[in-house]
Amino acid sequence: MPTVYPCVPGHEIVGRVTKTGSAVKKFKTGDVVAVGCMVDSDGTCEECKAGLEQFCHNLTLTYNFPDKHTNGVTYGGYSDSVVVDERFVLRVPDNLDPAGAAPLLCAGITTFSPLHHWGVTKGKKVGVVGLGGLGHMGVKFAHALGAHVVLFTASPNKKDDALRLGADEVVVSRNADEMAKHAGSFDFILDAVSADHDINAYLNLLRRDGNLCLVGAPEKPLAVSAFGLLFGRKSLSGSPIGGIAETQEMLDFCGKNNITSDVEIIPIQKVNDAYERLLKSDVKYRFVIDMASLKGGA
Amino acid sequence: MPTVYPCVPGHEIVGRVTKTGSAVKKFKTGDVVAVGCMVDSDGTCEECKAGLEQFCHNLTLTYNFPDKHTNGVTYGGYSDSVVVDERFVLRVPDNLDPAGAAPLLCAGITTFSPLHHWGVTKGKKVGVVGLGGLGHMGVKFAHALGAHVVLFTASPNKKDDALRLGADEVVVSRNADEMAKHAGSFDFILDAVSADHDINAYLNLLRRDGNLCLVGAPEKPLAVSAFGLLFGRKSLSGSPIGGIAETQEMLDFCGKNNITSDVEIIPIQKVNDAYERLLKSDVKYRFVIDMASLKGGA
Repeated sequence: MPTVYPCVPGHEIVGRVTKTGSAVKKFKTGDVVAVGCMVDSDGTCEECKAGLEQFCHNLTLTYNFPDKHTNGVTYGGYSDSVVVDERFVLRVPDNLDPAGAAPLLCAGITTFSPLHHWGVTKGKKVGVVGLGGLGHMGVKFAHALGAHVVLFTASPNKKDDALRLGADEVVVSRNADEMAKHAGSFDFILDAVSADHDINAYLNLLRRDGNLCLVGAPEKPLAVSAFGLLFGRKSLSGSPIGGIAETQEMLDFCGKNNITSDVEIIPIQKVNDAYERLLKSDVKYRFVIDMASLKGGA
Repeated sequence: MPTVYPCVPGHEIVGRVTKTGSAVKKFKTGDVVAVGCMVDSDGTCEECKAGLEQFCHNLTLTYNFPDKHTNGVTYGGYSDSVVVDERFVLRVPDNLDPAGAAPLLCAGITTFSPLHHWGVTKGKKVGVVGLGGLGHMGVKFAHALGAHVVLFTASPNKKDDALRLGADEVVVSRNADEMAKHAGSFDFILDAVSADHDINAYLNLLRRDGNLCLVGAPEKPLAVSAFGLLFGRKSLSGSPIGGIAETQEMLDFCGKNNITSDVEIIPIQKVNDAYERLLKSDVKYRFVIDMASLKGGA
């Protein structure tokens, strides 16, 4: 019979160090630290040496992934403690609220990494498609990096919130006239939508040499017009999380710019309600579970 | 009634200068010169200033395009003479056969430009998809740039020719085992196929940060898997011809490396037969019309 492992999720984890192994150098008891999507990698391959552990072929993900130390699976962050190699532990800047910092470990790095990798800076015009857990971080980061930020949303009622989060303009994507005004003008577009959508409408908004990077992952293949890429030497790319060094850089950037995720804190007992609300996009913008509530009983 | 213009094609033109205007500085009578896809641009926009006339919004294409000087249309290269602004005239290196040099003006620059723009050099592993007019130039250029070149073709009988043209390896794209051997290994893939094809099979062959550039343009949208781009931070891009300075650079590179297109020379009287053969891919690898044949009568 196949072994059945329980799936315990959670890969945006913040807490205090309660104990360190004798070889640990970077952290001490009491430090506020974080763990993201990865807890191990081989450390020897070309990707690891380049600080790109997210592309290591021997990566260990934080939950429900074969764990070479236990011969079982990893158990994630829905727990009151977790043991992690210090190579995969990040420092959380003192000024950041720990609850708001937790989503930085996935939603944060997933949006920061492509903006950083593809050189978004002051003077660039950047689009962010979708205002959810990822998109709202994309808006905050692109704004803090100095870009002119345009948020695209299918929901006109998200406009005020987008402006509050740092967008300079908001475009309702169903409005063809509003979309047309921005044709050929974007240096970079971060697409954080996981639902099926018309990608060519956004490729059309890129300027010459512009890049549209997917961080959401629609299940159905995207229908991409070759001509939409050819005329303007444009690129469609994708990016997952980031390496450990870049994740620390992102956290330090957040400390310096006072950036955290907008969160709603819930006790573990409400996790199923939260999941139902998540499916209806009823969250601004990330649920964070206070794990101290575990002791409150079921 | 709408005006009906005759469509006279031809945008890979090589010939000798027969006369120069009084302000012409770069050329003199007798020079072997070439004209490609463009004969004018505004010269003042950001694209022109960057030497990227191919992206100028006020570009004049070489045939069947509104011509601001005549108020008619441009008439292309199927002619015994053509008048062109010296800004859009290129020097052809002395050592190159003029007939073999002609296709460099479109097939050549279309394949050279992306290889050059995205930094293909010695040590890179480069794929070329399709061995036609564009693909055979892609193989020659990638080889001359020092890359390890793998040609992908649906036709096993093209193998010997691909190796002769400079490919290090040939993969028959319908052979899943052969394809699988190259998974995750390419820095750059130049896709010169205009027919509908499975783009994800090639995205899968890119290594981390790899780029697949379309120079063929399938009419139907390409079905692109978002996951195929995300895992490996890959890009799908497109590129059309190149700017004038880069086209000259390509011709000079060809002079230095003795590169021309493989061509079959025909008289203008055979142009319809050649077109029928083209539709059956029965050409190695470009037809070139000897315009002196115009004087031979219909």
